[in-house]
Amino acid sequence: MARDTWREVLAEFFGTFVLILFGAGVVAQYVLSRQVNGSYLAINLTWGLGVALGCYVSIGVSGAHLNPAVTLAVAVHRGFPWRKVLPYVTAQVLGAFVAAAVVYLTYREALAAFDGGVRQVLGPQGTGGIFATYPQPYLTTFPGGFIDQVVGTAILMGVLFGITDPRHAPPAGLVPLIVGLLVVAIGAAFGVNCGYAINPARDFGPRIFTAMAGWGSGVFRAGNFWWWVPIVGPLAGGVLGGWLYDIFVGKPTRAR
Amino acid sequence: MARDTWREVLAEFFGTFVLILFGAGVVAQYVLSRQVNGSYLAINLTWGLGVALGCYVSIGVSGAHLNPAVTLAVAVHRGFPWRKVLPYVTAQVLGAFVAAAVVYLTYREALAAFDGGVRQVLGPQGTGGIFATYPQPYLTTFPGGFIDQVVGTAILMGVLFGITDPRHAPPAGLVPLIVGLLVVAIGAAFGVNCGYAINPARDFGPRIFTAMAGWGSGVFRAGNFWWWVPIVGPLAGGVLGGWLYDIFVGKPTRAR
Amino acid sequence: MARDTWREVLAEFFGTFVLILFGAGVVAQYVLSRQVNGSYLAINLTWGLGVALGCYVSIGVSGAHLNPAVTLAVAVHRGFPWRKVLPYVTAQVLGAFVAAAVVYLTYREALAAFDGGVRQVLGPQGTGGIFATYPQPYLTTFPGGFIDQVVGTAILMGVLFGITDPRHAPPAGLVPLIVGLLVVAIGAAFGVNCGYAINPARDFGPRIFTAMAGWGSGVFRAGNFWWWVPIVGPLAGGVLGGWLYDIFVGKPTRAR
Amino acid sequence: MARDTWREVLAEFFGTFVLILFGAGVVAQYVLSRQVNGSYLAINLTWGLGVALGCYVSIGVSGAHLNPAVTLAVAVHRGFPWRKVLPYVTAQVLGAFVAAAVVYLTYREALAAFDGGVRQVLGPQGTGGIFATYPQPYLTTFPGGFIDQVVGTAILMGVLFGITDPRHAPPAGLVPLIVGLLVVAIGAAFGVNCGYAINPARDFGPRIFTAMAGWGSGVFRAGNFWWWVPIVGPLAGGVLGGWLYDIFVGKPTRAR
Repeated sequence: MARDTWREVLAEFFGTFVLILFGAGVVAQYVLSRQVNGSYLAINLTWGLGVALGCYVSIGVSGAHLNPAVTLAVAVHRGFPWRKVLPYVTAQVLGAFVAAAVVYLTYREALAAFDGGVRQVLGPQGTGGIFATYPQPYLTTFPGGFIDQVVGTAILMGVLFGITDPRHAPPAGLVPLIVGLLVVAIGAAFGVNCGYAINPARDFGPRIFTAMAGWGSGVFRAGNFWWWVPIVGPLAGGVLGGWLYDIFVGKPTRAR
Repeated sequence: MARDTWREVLAEFFGTFVLILFGAGVVAQYVLSRQVNGSYLAINLTWGLGVALGCYVSIGVSGAHLNPAVTLAVAVHRGFPWRKVLPYVTAQVLGAFVAAAVVYLTYREALAAFDGGVRQVLGPQGTGGIFATYPQPYLTTFPGGFIDQVVGTAILMGVLFGITDPRHAPPAGLVPLIVGLLVVAIGAAFGVNCGYAINPARDFGPRIFTAMAGWGSGVFRAGNFWWWVPIVGPLAGGVLGGWLYDIFVGKPTRAR
Repeated sequence: MARDTWREVLAEFFGTFVLILFGAGVVAQYVLSRQVNGSYLAINLTWGLGVALGCYVSIGVSGAHLNPAVTLAVAVHRGFPWRKVLPYVTAQVLGAFVAAAVVYLTYREALAAFDGGVRQVLGPQGTGGIFATYPQPYLTTFPGGFIDQVVGTAILMGVLFGITDPRHAPPAGLVPLIVGLLVVAIGAAFGVNCGYAINPARDFGPRIFTAMAGWGSGVFRAGNFWWWVPIVGPLAGGVLGGWLYDIFVGKPTRAR
Repeated sequence: MARDTWREVLAEFFGTFVLILFGAGVVAQYVLSRQVNGSYLAINLTWGLGVALGCYVSIGVSGAHLNPAVTLAVAVHRGFPWRKVLPYVTAQVLGAFVAAAVVYLTYREALAAFDGGVRQVLGPQGTGGIFATYPQPYLTTFPGGFIDQVVGTAILMGVLFGITDPRHAPPAGLVPLIVGLLVVAIGAAFGVNCGYAINPARDFGPRIFTAMAGWGSGVFRAGNFWWWVPIVGPLAGGVLGGWLYDIFVGKPTRAR
């Protein structure tokens, strides 16, 4: 890779690392305090802040995709170089993995106090949901969860294309804040079915960490092998959402 | 219609679609999770974010009315071309209708788990309120609900004229955010009587969808044929609010 | 008065009117829904939004004091013309009075359903607190409440002088938003003793309205004749806070 | 000290004073109202607002460190003059001390009503946590709490370096707001172990005040002599976080 690409990839790693520190951190705090020091609204707000803050450490260097679904959609619709797609995605997954490890390290004692040292994925003592997403029990058929991830990520990309379109964009330095608010709204409106992953790196990186750190292979078997839905669904949804934006509002013609 | 008007109408459709995706989505999540993954404050915040994000995908193209009451008020008070009023309003109602359908599709399984497949408009198993507004039981006489919708929409337009007045406006790219906060405040302060529709398209489009998708004609009969109040009230209130602003603060004289 | 002063006074009326619409509205919704459609956090947020939105309809015309304590402090410390003080304060009190009347009109049915038509100032069926502030039972001596109002308003003015100081000010069009957040923080940190009036107009205008609209003279007798504390305390506190800012940070030397 | 340094040190005092007014104030309100007029989310939001508002009264004069860990990290990584470190830190601790005294004065009656005048550090009637931080019972070993403070402050500095890096910074006048949101997110995601001091002045100044104002030496003995962890941990974490930012994203090359 060129030296510039290395710099971008490191920034992308660091941005996704920051995103997942806050994302996994807030769910850890909610679960491990038994809802005393957290709430569902706090989870929504903090995931949004995590996105905003992950952007503020990387956007000027790497563009702050922080999400393979974003990287794929801008490659398809906005001319992002295909040769950078794999390095970006790898950095995103690694950043999410390392962040999960830091959250685990910080909450080791709290985890032990919560489950007595016996790691469980789901159930009342379950802590798998701190790191990765799992579907609701009622979501028993494949299309339901897949549609949820496609819809959620299509909204993400469809609105993201608006926020970064110079025709209606916020001041340059505030794009991260508005993108963060977009993620707050997706979590508040489209989070209940299966935890609004809408980001393959956000889900897969920490899931691998849990598999290695004591939760075992159940993290892949749970929800009838749910793990691949928050990978494939977002990738499809992101491309779809960008395409819908270009159909209805039109590709921006002025460069920013 | 001229080609430019088509582009504006499509953007208006897309903006209202985004608004109602978040608006109906957050109420769906609140109701269907039995208040576990939502709260009244989250509903207020997310409706506001829906308005902001609906603006960020359309404001640079169509001006982002997203609301027939806004379109009418700017036609009356700000010289918006009357020939565009009907196309805008049609696009707004259609955008809201399609968004209701997408929310329904995304929450099909959750709806079935909630009410066992028997759609009800009101009551403990009622889900009509996810899509359209219904009055509180104590609001038994006509003037009460009508005044509520006039007051709510007058506040919306009266303050909106301030936010877009160059004498005190926020930076151009942040108008959507401040308008979203205005809607948060209206929901928090004037939402309890009858759900702060303050937007005929927001209410009528999804109501038609529910009538067609299994809730039946009860959506029109409920609340003593309430359905027309959140259409007529907002239209009157929007014009009134804009007029009050111009009386007390004065029409802006500089173009923006 | 000069024609320009009239325009300013009308804008000041309208701005305070908007502030109290949201402020009294959110407490009405909280009380009358028996906390179902509101929360203490929503009250804090919406008072802050009310301040921000009251500014967005008036700041470019009148400077958006919306508060006699602000008007007095800028007259003392920042050269605001003394001859405008009385017209501004009158407009502020009238704006708050009329807003209280509109909130009352909008929530007539809800009030009747809540208290059966028997207006009470305090107690479980009490609704006086929707419009004006009353002290906690433990605040039995005079100095306690007076200190609370002095401290709260000193913080308001001390920080307000920072937010409008060109050395650290936000972009011009976002001053209202940051001032709104300041009021959110004051309500969250200094609201419990006696409801953070920190604004004589906010308290006195609606209190007069309640005296006339059925709550009777109890609104003045309650809390051992509390009513004058949220008038005198804020006036003193505002002047003190501005003075502290100028001591520690220094008067701004550049005009904005 | 030079006259300019005096001005900076006074501003730093005032900024930290404002920060702790809101920070200690919101916890006081939460504890003393027995959670009626506060919530954990309100605590997170108000600490963040306290940081933002503390910046808005000082950033243009002193740079608004408000935190010895920030002062040390910018001395190590960004060339802040070492000769100013001690004056800044002293001003920060004093500002926090005086703010604790003002909060105490404002809530004297409420404190007496809460604990009957018998000051206790911890336990159901404990009020030490209003002013300083104490660890959870499960955090029994030294490394756990130390890691928590290092991680929390490393996140603070790592992201702060991003927010103030001209490559991705918000508009100058909005840096305080974004920094405030960063502190909201840290509190929501990394607050449960031991109350996210992440600032030696924030913790030590008010702790000394409580030792002198009736809580006694227990404030130092509690949590197995916890008091020094929120001093040393943040100092180490701040330096680490700045270093990580420079490794992964790179020192900014353009001056702002």
